[in-house]
Amino acid sequence: MKTENQTIRIIPLGGLEQIGMNMTAFEFEDSIIVVDCGLSFPEDEMLGIDLVIPDITYLKENASKVKGVIITHGHEDHIGALPYILKELNMPIYATKLTMGIIDNKLKEHNLLKSTKRKVIKYGQSINLGCFRIEFIRTNHSIADATALAIYSPAGIIVHTGDFKVDYTPVFGEVIDLQRFAELGKKGVLALMCDSTNAERPGFTMSERTLGKTFDTLFAENKKQRIIIATFASNVDRVQQIINSAHKFGRKVVVEGRSMVNIITTASELGYIKIPDNTLIDIDHLKNYTDDQIVLITTGSQGETMAALSRMANSIHKKISIKPGDTVIFSSNPIPGNEKAVSKIMNELYAKGAEVIFQDTHVSGHACQEEIKLIYALTKPQYAIPVHGEYRHLRCQAKLAQDMGVPKKNTFILNSGDVLALSKERGSVVGKVPAQGVFVDGLGVGDVGNIVLRDRQHLSQNGLLIVVVTLERYSNQLMAGPDIVSRGFVYVRESETLIEDARQVVRESLDYCMNKNITDWGKIKGQIKDSLGEFLWKRTKRNPMILPIITEV
Amino acid sequence: MKTENQTIRIIPLGGLEQIGMNMTAFEFEDSIIVVDCGLSFPEDEMLGIDLVIPDITYLKENASKVKGVIITHGHEDHIGALPYILKELNMPIYATKLTMGIIDNKLKEHNLLKSTKRKVIKYGQSINLGCFRIEFIRTNHSIADATALAIYSPAGIIVHTGDFKVDYTPVFGEVIDLQRFAELGKKGVLALMCDSTNAERPGFTMSERTLGKTFDTLFAENKKQRIIIATFASNVDRVQQIINSAHKFGRKVVVEGRSMVNIITTASELGYIKIPDNTLIDIDHLKNYTDDQIVLITTGSQGETMAALSRMANSIHKKISIKPGDTVIFSSNPIPGNEKAVSKIMNELYAKGAEVIFQDTHVSGHACQEEIKLIYALTKPQYAIPVHGEYRHLRCQAKLAQDMGVPKKNTFILNSGDVLALSKERGSVVGKVPAQGVFVDGLGVGDVGNIVLRDRQHLSQNGLLIVVVTLERYSNQLMAGPDIVSRGFVYVRESETLIEDARQVVRESLDYCMNKNITDWGKIKGQIKDSLGEFLWKRTKRNPMILPIITEV
Repeated sequence: MKTENQTIRIIPLGGLEQIGMNMTAFEFEDSIIVVDCGLSFPEDEMLGIDLVIPDITYLKENASKVKGVIITHGHEDHIGALPYILKELNMPIYATKLTMGIIDNKLKEHNLLKSTKRKVIKYGQSINLGCFRIEFIRTNHSIADATALAIYSPAGIIVHTGDFKVDYTPVFGEVIDLQRFAELGKKGVLALMCDSTNAERPGFTMSERTLGKTFDTLFAENKKQRIIIATFASNVDRVQQIINSAHKFGRKVVVEGRSMVNIITTASELGYIKIPDNTLIDIDHLKNYTDDQIVLITTGSQGETMAALSRMANSIHKKISIKPGDTVIFSSNPIPGNEKAVSKIMNELYAKGAEVIFQDTHVSGHACQEEIKLIYALTKPQYAIPVHGEYRHLRCQAKLAQDMGVPKKNTFILNSGDVLALSKERGSVVGKVPAQGVFVDGLGVGDVGNIVLRDRQHLSQNGLLIVVVTLERYSNQLMAGPDIVSRGFVYVRESETLIEDARQVVRESLDYCMNKNITDWGKIKGQIKDSLGEFLWKRTKRNPMILPIITEV
Repeated sequence: MKTENQTIRIIPLGGLEQIGMNMTAFEFEDSIIVVDCGLSFPEDEMLGIDLVIPDITYLKENASKVKGVIITHGHEDHIGALPYILKELNMPIYATKLTMGIIDNKLKEHNLLKSTKRKVIKYGQSINLGCFRIEFIRTNHSIADATALAIYSPAGIIVHTGDFKVDYTPVFGEVIDLQRFAELGKKGVLALMCDSTNAERPGFTMSERTLGKTFDTLFAENKKQRIIIATFASNVDRVQQIINSAHKFGRKVVVEGRSMVNIITTASELGYIKIPDNTLIDIDHLKNYTDDQIVLITTGSQGETMAALSRMANSIHKKISIKPGDTVIFSSNPIPGNEKAVSKIMNELYAKGAEVIFQDTHVSGHACQEEIKLIYALTKPQYAIPVHGEYRHLRCQAKLAQDMGVPKKNTFILNSGDVLALSKERGSVVGKVPAQGVFVDGLGVGDVGNIVLRDRQHLSQNGLLIVVVTLERYSNQLMAGPDIVSRGFVYVRESETLIEDARQVVRESLDYCMNKNITDWGKIKGQIKDSLGEFLWKRTKRNPMILPIITEV
């Protein structure tokens, strides 16, 4: 394959400058392929937003070129936007078996199963999409069936790791296919796009299997207690190990929390988890067993208020309440931003008399520095494009890449939306496409923008004051009001003087407008807003949203 | 002193079930003394709230008994509520010199200096307040002049550690007065109230002095760079050590950030920090020096958006901007809840080309498990009352206390507001006083309550829809409108159909009321709210606040 002077365009539509919302387009002449289609959860300031999905304006504008989407694994930040994106732009989906099983559940819920072409791909297999060939390469992660991709293009081979770690002793399946990475390196890799999530952490991520012993120890130490273990819904291998320990210690297992039940069911049907006969029981049969015969595996390890664990801790779960003597194990670390929520639920559990264990029962699913270096050593890429991470993580990997011999000018810390043109001869950012993320709020996709959010922020901090005045049509004489309605500002019953004084300020504004012959309603409203705003700031040092409403008779 | 059958009442008004808002009342017959008077910062769900201060209803009801307030050290969670509380209930303040210096600054700002009696107390000194004698005992903490208290009452001696650690080699002053704790233990301590902040951490907190070497190393490694160090405004010893390193390496120091400048000025005036001549320079003289001659010490280590560091990173600081080559050191750990904000500012600093160092440059000011055990070993209290911490921390210390020989029934994990009656014979919670915390929003203290907060939450998630209709006075015939004004709900220009349909729903509600002869405005509003709410939920799966406003002609 002649690769000279051939240029591929790499366009991340999300996943850079942030954890989540992973989606990248690869374009060569008339072909575009997409890798991943994830969502991200809203930042604190995105009030009322349910999720954020990638902006696919660029893909829609080039819809005829788009050949399909390849999904690297079944986590929400890689598959979660599919139902929304497919409604806008239908494309065939390519993924491994477990990943596709989880996607199928999602598409079923959104009634998209029939209308979407799907193809399950095995490790080692390749697919041809336009002028691209994409090979699936086995990796390890915190969910089974994660894949890296070798993307063969006329410009050269691009290796995309997906989310990965190197687990020499995985619970399910085999170790990451390091040999294949090496072979590709020998052939010549144009660019490596490698997971940066843990790029700041030195050393090597521990094997998932190391937790098996930890669980055995904890089960041995808590023989009389009811054991409740909270972990990530999608960590099938973790659940497998808990089930193994439970079986060994003669306990029955109850899985609780909708997302976990869904994934474990799918994993079990597809053979990704082995549950010994008579181990799993229905939650309704709990009453037939004593505390020392039971393990509950549940969602809610991030302190999510609506998840099963939180409902148990607050005694609003229909079937289980935390009680003195329970041992609750957090087999998870708080995701950045969730620390306070996790702390809150721990306090609630302690207050109910439970024992809480939250150390040494989690390993990461992402590669640390030595693993990242290993991939660089094997693939020896010409260009390094760190992916999956905030700026600090990307930058840290960029440094590792340089330590591993990638020239600084060949290392690209991209922003989402950047169009990187890459050839054997040169690489540079040549353009920008929309990639701000689209807000999903209820059924609305994209109908909440920055103006609406700014209003929500204003309202959330200071509340609002509505001023209603009725004016005579021709003279603008005050016929009724001013009436003042407030919400989220002050407790009105205890602030009667303030509200009465505010009314007087409005009357004076209207008088002022009358005297100055100001008849334009916009200007009258502006006058009310300004004078009332100033008055309220002076009196309360607060700044509520002021909404003057004028009706006429 | 005969202590049999004598009962003291201990009433925490804050500081339990939470970090912050420390305040405890001690009552014996006609005497009440108060220890600390701190604020806490609002939780995420307390939208728009600036601070939270203790509820002193109980103290006001017993104002004639209150003899004074003793402050253990100069941190906001121990002194921050003073200006607000003193306006409600003036009491004399007793504190060590630096603590009082910081308090004085605060009172000056609030014009309370003249009206408040203040007395500086030295370590080892005692004061008599009503039937109490209070002795100040030297401790170590992350601010100088922190004190523990021995509270002598007719019921026995209560030892209150304040916030403390054991620092055998403090930067300023001497090691905690362990001998005095031991002497008190020999005499017999009724109850120990001990700092729980780090009760979950095993081992011993490192000495503040160990950081001196770290700073020297960092200065040696960054000889050419401008060095910017972010730390806590009140950590005078930390600033001292940075100044020491700066002096050693021939750099000038600029202190930036209002709160830090205030505290360092006070500490310097009172002799708690030693600044070599010609070391401190004014920020305006920065331009006379090259990067390698400068160290900036700044606030903003918690990612606070308005603090100096954040303004520098975002180039909105008037005098300093972060530039490529800068070395920024975070001499702090993120306080739980601030992790994302800290991560955000790190990304911003990296993006500006700075090098960021955030490891091994902080030690805690609070005692870990071995230090807590040491205090129990010295004082051998009859009762243990863990203080300063969330439930999980209090509970952890309670376990330590039991390990150290305090019987389980003598260990009290209190809630704020509990009234604990304690005598040599028995201890039990005998009542409850208000201790919910009072919200401060702008100038308003206590005028924002749960109803207002609930409205702010509702508005923040979903925005609002105002429906204005003008009805004929007698017939309730629709004369004008319905007009719909929305904020924070949808982007109206792109949702014209939705709004028009909503208008139709309102018209139908009014028709329905006409037909049913419903003339009561409250009922008409209710009808509009219900039908519109249902309509909007169906169409958008959102639930905005609906405010119907009726005017009549």
